[in-house]
Parts: sequence; structure tokens; C-alpha cells
Amino acid sequence: MAYIDLCVDEQLFPGITGPMRYRPETAEPLNALAEVLLRAPHSLSPGERELIAAYVSGLNDCTFCCSSHSAFAAAQLDAGMGLVEKVRADVDSAPISPKLRALLRIAGAVQRSGRAVTADLVEAARSEGATDVELHDTVLIAAAFCMYNRYVDGLGTFTPQRQEDYLPMAERIVQHGYGV
Amino acid sequence: MAYIDLCVDEQLFPGITGPMRYRPETAEPLNALAEVLLRAPHSLSPGERELIAAYVSGLNDCTFCCSSHSAFAAAQLDAGMGLVEKVRADVDSAPISPKLRALLRIAGAVQRSGRAVTADLVEAARSEGATDVELHDTVLIAAAFCMYNRYVDGLGTFTPQRQEDYLPMAERIVQHGYGV
Repeated sequence: MAYIDLCVDEQLFPGITGPMRYRPETAEPLNALAEVLLRAPHSLSPGERELIAAYVSGLNDCTFCCSSHSAFAAAQLDAGMGLVEKVRADVDSAPISPKLRALLRIAGAVQRSGRAVTADLVEAARSEGATDVELHDTVLIAAAFCMYNRYVDGLGTFTPQRQEDYLPMAERIVQHGYGV
Repeated sequence: MAYIDLCVDEQLFPGITGPMRYRPETAEPLNALAEVLLRAPHSLSPGERELIAAYVSGLNDCTFCCSSHSAFAAAQLDAGMGLVEKVRADVDSAPISPKLRALLRIAGAVQRSGRAVTADLVEAARSEGATDVELHDTVLIAAAFCMYNRYVDGLGTFTPQRQEDYLPMAERIVQHGYGV
């Protein structure tokens, strides 16, 4: 049970979907931000951007966001959940491109604090081919998930426990997006 | 100088305003979220909600957001900057209502982690008269500033140093809002 009465069946509207039904005025910009950051046309694929979201959500220990965005990443990456789990376990050894690894290191810094990002981290990503828009969006995706994660856990929302509970959500997001 | 080329004169577009000019696609939902959270009709006044934003930004050590939202709060609170400084220095002793104090304690928990919010903190606020919408919006304001703060500092944006540099921004926000 969430800390406030979300006026929904929380089993049917788990995690962020409960407070989004409760407060459509804030759900609209929250969904619009997710749509542009994770799904709009971009040089980073939706799977790569969902991977950044899942990685940051794992660092923030947010089970709902980490499980859901891991499922969304896995559904859109050729290497599937195996790759997502490798990235979440150890960015340094995961079989990803040097550019994505450097961007994930920036995302990890953002998760700790905006001030933890350094010119060296940015330069390292740039030397692997990261563009300014990729750098900007990596910082903002990581920052945004520091919000979504706190929103979900700060309200004590219901969290499905099994990975398979997140598969229907993944199908919906991949097909229809974040409802904008 | 920010870590990426924001394509603006950073002295004229300090802090978050630089990346917002750089990437209007994300600026739109970011501004829309700030507008509904901080300025839409509400049982908490705009000054009280800006105070929550300033308090969290101080905890996140984000000078631009803390200075600007302190100025926005001061401009909309009868007790002005003196009260903002007291709240930022010590929530426990600041001369505010018991309800606002309890909400600020929840915001402080959210700043650390969504998981730091407890049923006891929520119950304490409720017993001082906090409504579900006030609880929801306090959690989301605090969470959102964990995003805005990381966005501003994670890109290394330009930060004006004197408090008076933020007064024209305060005038603009109070009169015109977050540009939605």
C-alpha cells in the first residue's frame, strides 16, 4: 500500500503508474519527458537509452524502475536481458561499445551528484565519439531517473517482484511509448 | 564554460537556462513540470513550494538552483529571504508551520533516497494537516529538484555568484512563470 490513497487498484497500477493516474497534471510532463529522452529519434537507440535508465535505477536501488526499464531495454537490444544484467553488474567489463561505456560512467557520476561529473569523464566519452547531444541527454536521462526513482519509492508504491511481471509493460512501451 | 557547447552566451543564459535553450525538446516538459508543481493553484502557496525546491537544492549543493529558487521563494513569502535562510540553516528551529516543517522533513528524506521516506514521516505530516495532494507534490517537488540540480551541475553550467544576480530571474518567474 502506498503512503497516500492513490484511488486505484495498486496491483493493476504498480510503481509509477499509480501516482500518474492519481495526478494527471504532473503525469503529462513526466511522460512527455520520458518519451523525448528514451524514444524520440536519436543517435543512441531506444535500447541504449533504456539501458542508461535501468543502470541508474539500479544504482538508486529502485526495484520498480530498475525492473521495468531493464525489461524495456532487453526488449529493444539484440543481446537482451543478458546484456542488461552484465551492464548492471559491472560497466567496466560489460560487452558494450567504448562510447556507451563512457556514457554510462557519466550517468553513474550523475546518480551520485551533478558535481561528480568531471571534464575528464566528458572528455573520455567525447574521445570515444560521443556527441554534445548524446552527452546532454545522458546527463538528463540519469538526472531524470534520480527523480522518477525517488517519486516511485518516496510514495511507497507497489512493486511487482518477478521479472516476468514486467514483460507486458515492456510490450506496451515498445509498441505505444510513454503515452504522449 | 559548460562541458558541451550550449550555443548561447552563458552569461546571458546561466544555469538551467543554457541547456534549455540548447535542447527545447526537453525544456518543454521540464518547464511544464515546474509550472504545475510550483505555480499551479494549490493549497500550498507558490512561496512554500519554492521553499521546498530551494531547501532540496541546498541539500544537493546546487548553487544555481538553490540561489534562484531561494530568490523565487523570498519574492513570494511575506517573511522574505530571512525565512528562506532560516529554513535552509535548520528546518527544526525555523519559524514555519508544523505542517510545512513536516513536509520539509519528507523532502529532506527524498533528497537522500526515495527509500528514506517512512510511514512515520508521512503520518507526522498528516497529523499536522497535510493532505494527500500536498504529500504527493512534496515528494515530487523534492524528487524533481534531485533531477534539475543534477542536470545543472552535471553539465557544468555557468553559476552567477552574487544573490542579487538572481533578482531579475525572480521577478520574471513571479510575473510570467516557467514559460509554458
